[in-house]
Amino acid sequence: MSFNTFGHLFRVTTFGESHGPAIGCVVDGCPPRIPLAEADIQPYLDKRRPGQSRYTTQRQEPDTVKILSGVFADEATGVQVTTGTPIALLIENVDQRSKDYSAIKDAYRPGHAGYAYDAKYGIHDYRGGGRASARETAMRVAAGAIARKIVPGLKVRGALIQMGRHKVDRSRWDWAEVDNNPFFSPDAQAAAEFAEQLDAVRKRGSSVGAVIEIVAEGVPPGLGAPVYGKLDGDLAGAMMGINAVKGVEIGAGFAAAELSGEDNADEMRMDHERLGNDSRPRFLSNNAGGILGGISTGQPMVVRFAVKPTSSILAPRRTVDRYGRETEIVTTGRHDPCVGIRAVPVGEAMVACVIADHYLRHRGQVGESAAWPFAKR
Amino acid sequence: MSFNTFGHLFRVTTFGESHGPAIGCVVDGCPPRIPLAEADIQPYLDKRRPGQSRYTTQRQEPDTVKILSGVFADEATGVQVTTGTPIALLIENVDQRSKDYSAIKDAYRPGHAGYAYDAKYGIHDYRGGGRASARETAMRVAAGAIARKIVPGLKVRGALIQMGRHKVDRSRWDWAEVDNNPFFSPDAQAAAEFAEQLDAVRKRGSSVGAVIEIVAEGVPPGLGAPVYGKLDGDLAGAMMGINAVKGVEIGAGFAAAELSGEDNADEMRMDHERLGNDSRPRFLSNNAGGILGGISTGQPMVVRFAVKPTSSILAPRRTVDRYGRETEIVTTGRHDPCVGIRAVPVGEAMVACVIADHYLRHRGQVGESAAWPFAKR
Amino acid sequence: MSFNTFGHLFRVTTFGESHGPAIGCVVDGCPPRIPLAEADIQPYLDKRRPGQSRYTTQRQEPDTVKILSGVFADEATGVQVTTGTPIALLIENVDQRSKDYSAIKDAYRPGHAGYAYDAKYGIHDYRGGGRASARETAMRVAAGAIARKIVPGLKVRGALIQMGRHKVDRSRWDWAEVDNNPFFSPDAQAAAEFAEQLDAVRKRGSSVGAVIEIVAEGVPPGLGAPVYGKLDGDLAGAMMGINAVKGVEIGAGFAAAELSGEDNADEMRMDHERLGNDSRPRFLSNNAGGILGGISTGQPMVVRFAVKPTSSILAPRRTVDRYGRETEIVTTGRHDPCVGIRAVPVGEAMVACVIADHYLRHRGQVGESAAWPFAKR
Amino acid sequence: MSFNTFGHLFRVTTFGESHGPAIGCVVDGCPPRIPLAEADIQPYLDKRRPGQSRYTTQRQEPDTVKILSGVFADEATGVQVTTGTPIALLIENVDQRSKDYSAIKDAYRPGHAGYAYDAKYGIHDYRGGGRASARETAMRVAAGAIARKIVPGLKVRGALIQMGRHKVDRSRWDWAEVDNNPFFSPDAQAAAEFAEQLDAVRKRGSSVGAVIEIVAEGVPPGLGAPVYGKLDGDLAGAMMGINAVKGVEIGAGFAAAELSGEDNADEMRMDHERLGNDSRPRFLSNNAGGILGGISTGQPMVVRFAVKPTSSILAPRRTVDRYGRETEIVTTGRHDPCVGIRAVPVGEAMVACVIADHYLRHRGQVGESAAWPFAKR
Repeated sequence: MSFNTFGHLFRVTTFGESHGPAIGCVVDGCPPRIPLAEADIQPYLDKRRPGQSRYTTQRQEPDTVKILSGVFADEATGVQVTTGTPIALLIENVDQRSKDYSAIKDAYRPGHAGYAYDAKYGIHDYRGGGRASARETAMRVAAGAIARKIVPGLKVRGALIQMGRHKVDRSRWDWAEVDNNPFFSPDAQAAAEFAEQLDAVRKRGSSVGAVIEIVAEGVPPGLGAPVYGKLDGDLAGAMMGINAVKGVEIGAGFAAAELSGEDNADEMRMDHERLGNDSRPRFLSNNAGGILGGISTGQPMVVRFAVKPTSSILAPRRTVDRYGRETEIVTTGRHDPCVGIRAVPVGEAMVACVIADHYLRHRGQVGESAAWPFAKR
Repeated sequence: MSFNTFGHLFRVTTFGESHGPAIGCVVDGCPPRIPLAEADIQPYLDKRRPGQSRYTTQRQEPDTVKILSGVFADEATGVQVTTGTPIALLIENVDQRSKDYSAIKDAYRPGHAGYAYDAKYGIHDYRGGGRASARETAMRVAAGAIARKIVPGLKVRGALIQMGRHKVDRSRWDWAEVDNNPFFSPDAQAAAEFAEQLDAVRKRGSSVGAVIEIVAEGVPPGLGAPVYGKLDGDLAGAMMGINAVKGVEIGAGFAAAELSGEDNADEMRMDHERLGNDSRPRFLSNNAGGILGGISTGQPMVVRFAVKPTSSILAPRRTVDRYGRETEIVTTGRHDPCVGIRAVPVGEAMVACVIADHYLRHRGQVGESAAWPFAKR
Repeated sequence: MSFNTFGHLFRVTTFGESHGPAIGCVVDGCPPRIPLAEADIQPYLDKRRPGQSRYTTQRQEPDTVKILSGVFADEATGVQVTTGTPIALLIENVDQRSKDYSAIKDAYRPGHAGYAYDAKYGIHDYRGGGRASARETAMRVAAGAIARKIVPGLKVRGALIQMGRHKVDRSRWDWAEVDNNPFFSPDAQAAAEFAEQLDAVRKRGSSVGAVIEIVAEGVPPGLGAPVYGKLDGDLAGAMMGINAVKGVEIGAGFAAAELSGEDNADEMRMDHERLGNDSRPRFLSNNAGGILGGISTGQPMVVRFAVKPTSSILAPRRTVDRYGRETEIVTTGRHDPCVGIRAVPVGEAMVACVIADHYLRHRGQVGESAAWPFAKR
Repeated sequence: MSFNTFGHLFRVTTFGESHGPAIGCVVDGCPPRIPLAEADIQPYLDKRRPGQSRYTTQRQEPDTVKILSGVFADEATGVQVTTGTPIALLIENVDQRSKDYSAIKDAYRPGHAGYAYDAKYGIHDYRGGGRASARETAMRVAAGAIARKIVPGLKVRGALIQMGRHKVDRSRWDWAEVDNNPFFSPDAQAAAEFAEQLDAVRKRGSSVGAVIEIVAEGVPPGLGAPVYGKLDGDLAGAMMGINAVKGVEIGAGFAAAELSGEDNADEMRMDHERLGNDSRPRFLSNNAGGILGGISTGQPMVVRFAVKPTSSILAPRRTVDRYGRETEIVTTGRHDPCVGIRAVPVGEAMVACVIADHYLRHRGQVGESAAWPFAKR
């Protein structure tokens, strides 16, 4: 990971600003001969797309993705597949309203990246946050759709588990419910509470934070490159790199600090339903969140991250401007009252990208031999 | 970051196992003409060194560091300085007791990396955890000592703020106290409680987790490489990559999820004590933890991470062995009842390494011009 | 350098196939506040553009470049400048004639990349060479135009110095002549011979190789990152990576093997026209080609590379097809009889990219302090 | 490749100076479970070791290598194998004579890296060339010995084919002869001429250049990562990065510029001795040197490079010193009259490292499926 490129073997480079002509990405290192068409990517983008309910920004972007390179229709089958060369994806911006931003041209919005970008580069495309806009995350979602196709059997799902102080009740967790409400809540009852809360937040021009949980099933054991390319290290870096994220935890997370060694360590038994070459252990708990020593164990990988409330709010805040003058600012324009909602598909995508990258890295170093330790080598 | 190399321009490659002949590292990309001798590194190693109190492992390792390359005595001044070429550091292992580990040769210790290493590589040096041992972190501390010398005015300090369920009282925070107790607690009263708690834990052969806080002051604004090399992303990756860490947060962290937009965004005023080229804002709060949009703002950087309880405990735990047989295991040998304590200097070192790397990366892209936005460009 | 990304701090990622909808690139890591518009890039593309004389392929591509991101009009000056974020460039393909290639769909053209791509990926977009097409080099030229703006005072020029067995006469070298003939020959008399030779080659449906020389002036001393990121190593890698290149040399090159130590080593005197902080040596010869120990010395950098004759020829050649059947092949379609001609602007661009990348890397590690050793430090 | 680290998945980081306490390297990313002991590495070091004939430097270095990490004795077999973690290698320097260099402390030796290092870093360990010394190449040879074990069936051999103006006669090429003479000449008669020539060169305190050829057999087809990680690009970078190398060519090399398209393109037939899944083409010539489009074809890979005469000669040369004073210099001390000789094992090692790295990278992206295009997929 560096600059605007993510990953080592599965590499994603994104570009584009909120109010430029287009955003896009180049996905490099993808294995060849994987069926890939726009229709494989678009559903994930649609999930993240703004303007779908009154709870997200009203900017209208169809976010229609176009594949510019890296695929070829296999004549034998007629199916369009990846060629192993760079896959470029492009989404045109259609609903920029740059004039919305003229009021904030010079004054820094507290909590926004504008001040920091200016401190770094001495110039900042302030329109809609420019490069710092969450609009960039559309390309993460697009890349994630490709990443999901690389690891056989991989299933990555996410849910919003907390908004403000309201949390879902885990005893009511239902993955099927996640797509039934505009919050990606796995708990229908909590979704109703979220709706009520967010309506109030929206009405008073405020915003609220959230906590997201991503679960990856079907992660092969053995992924991760200790000691500075650990799977959990890369996941934490990827999650924290999502806009507005302030905290990341894996498995028991911060709660692990309060556990005793006996309670924390996940005991192991054999999975008696699997035999022979497929022989593997089962863990009696999952405080590790599927990762030990930076390497996947084959258990479900569980990652959570906290998203701060968006800083674009109607209440006037004290700030300074580019010329060092003290002033006040009110942010109008179109914004998400809870940016954490649309972070769910983004978090899923980043988890998929990290796993795909490590899957290829592991295959490079160790090969494709059966990884379960009890298998013959 | 990848495999056993950390960083892009300030690059640290570590090697060595807990029970091999030596551990070491190569620090590459260090600027030239920085005074550097063993005496600059040793004090930080001494802080992390095992066997210094009854609260850490009783393994006796002097951890004496030797510089093998990359320095030269400047004839004009007689001072040994860096040459800009790779600095190799070596620490010999002296107190290995590999026989302690014969009992666990085949059975996986729940919560340990052993199973995962075996699943990945099909072979594992189980003696003392091999490469997965926290012994590797000595080289992080050594590299961090060099990193600290690269960024002018940088000050990185850490403290243990929670052990088990006991937390320090922030109203009693005193940095000077940190070096007065064996827990790196900034609160003398909490230190006494920690001692009592840990004696009990130790006696019953158990272990306990902890939370560490690292604060970096003097970080220049403008560090960070959006969007996949964000300063907070790299910090999170570096912290989560430390042995036994399960959670990371920056600034308000997970608490940000519960804040409203008004409360979370840090308002700005001018710092009237600084004028002219040194003109800069001050922030009225620090929920951001010194980072906005992945870029440092010049505020103190605040990072916290949770360390799980060490899994090496005396209570018998259910597990399986390399041959797929179910068994029970008891971990004897020498271990830290609270591995979080020695994680304090390690966390400091990793934060220093991240900042040094980004300092050089920023200088590469943007140059050394004044970064404060109000300065003339 | 890896996959489709070139460079460490000045990073260029290209994408696109010869017969896809578009080719493009993302230039990441560019310093901010550099004036940049399409008009800065287009002239270099025009130089490389096909179809400009009867000596290059008759494919008609306007190669009009569009900047999609990474620039912003500075309001203070009205000038569009770089923002430090990724600069995406796009060129639409307009003159694909894919049906030209149906004859070679299954049979491998001897000397072409098709067989190798198929061996690697198991699939190959054979239309116009797909990703292996020299069409990709348009984006190198575009990126090179940006690279040239990064290093103050840098001047990179190239010339074709040999076609087949005909060489230019160095005593007639005239840089001004290079743009007066369709071969980039610095020797007008040689250009006339090249024309005659190439007309004959073209008529008999054959092709011919060439040697190109690139000279970079104004390269600051001190660039290069020993020992595995040497300036000459990176130059050699970049040149050899250009399509159809089979040899690279720097300074005296292969002729150095025949020199004695006395004749080869470039003696030094002081440059008496420069005094004080600008004090520097002059070299009495330049067998080193401006690089010693992998680091630039401040002398002009001289790089030469050999381009093989294009393999797309009318003479029937023996080959095999994808199904392992022996066959013969004749390549019709539109091709360059001497692909070395258009390699001149490509070679210039790659040299500029290498220098720009090392300029930023050097600034990162060492800073902007005066580099000449005689200056006070 | 960057700074002192070579490779992407097979990564080699070297450190150490000619007159420091030791040189060493860390080999990271090596696959696990490969048998490895010092005895696998030492023979290659012995081949490169100085002081073995009167034709190389008289410095006496046993170059005894020690493995510090990354291996473990497999209990099942008793064999020491790699564990997949970093392999650290160390060689202690024993025959430094730093006083030899006091005369050249301030004056730059024409043709040496000293001036360039000083221009870059503002400090230089001039003793024996410091980091720029060819002594560093011992670690390349050591790493190469490991690389050779990674690719099944790989055979990398090198030979000196030209010294000064004397060339070997290819009709007399005999690989068995290479180890029979102190020049690695494959032509016994040429070896005798080399001896005579070099005695004369040595007597007059001069030096002479050379050309080396490396041939790699058993390279699987499909290695190489277009377009900026091409196999030939990486080979050229690796060869040019060897001390004193000024030119690199692959296959027909510079001679390709003089060929017609018909003569250059290597025609293909089926290899009728191989059937079924092992079905593959044979090429009727090898102008490509085993690489097309940056990807290996399965033919023998042929790389040549030119080594300049060492600049350490007895004849007085004009130069300047660190203080900008003009002076003359004579280089005494112990030096190779033809540094090209010992470049043979170094070139072999670098070729092996490049191939091993690409072998793992290819396996990462594409997997281990049969690569020959005619095999079923």
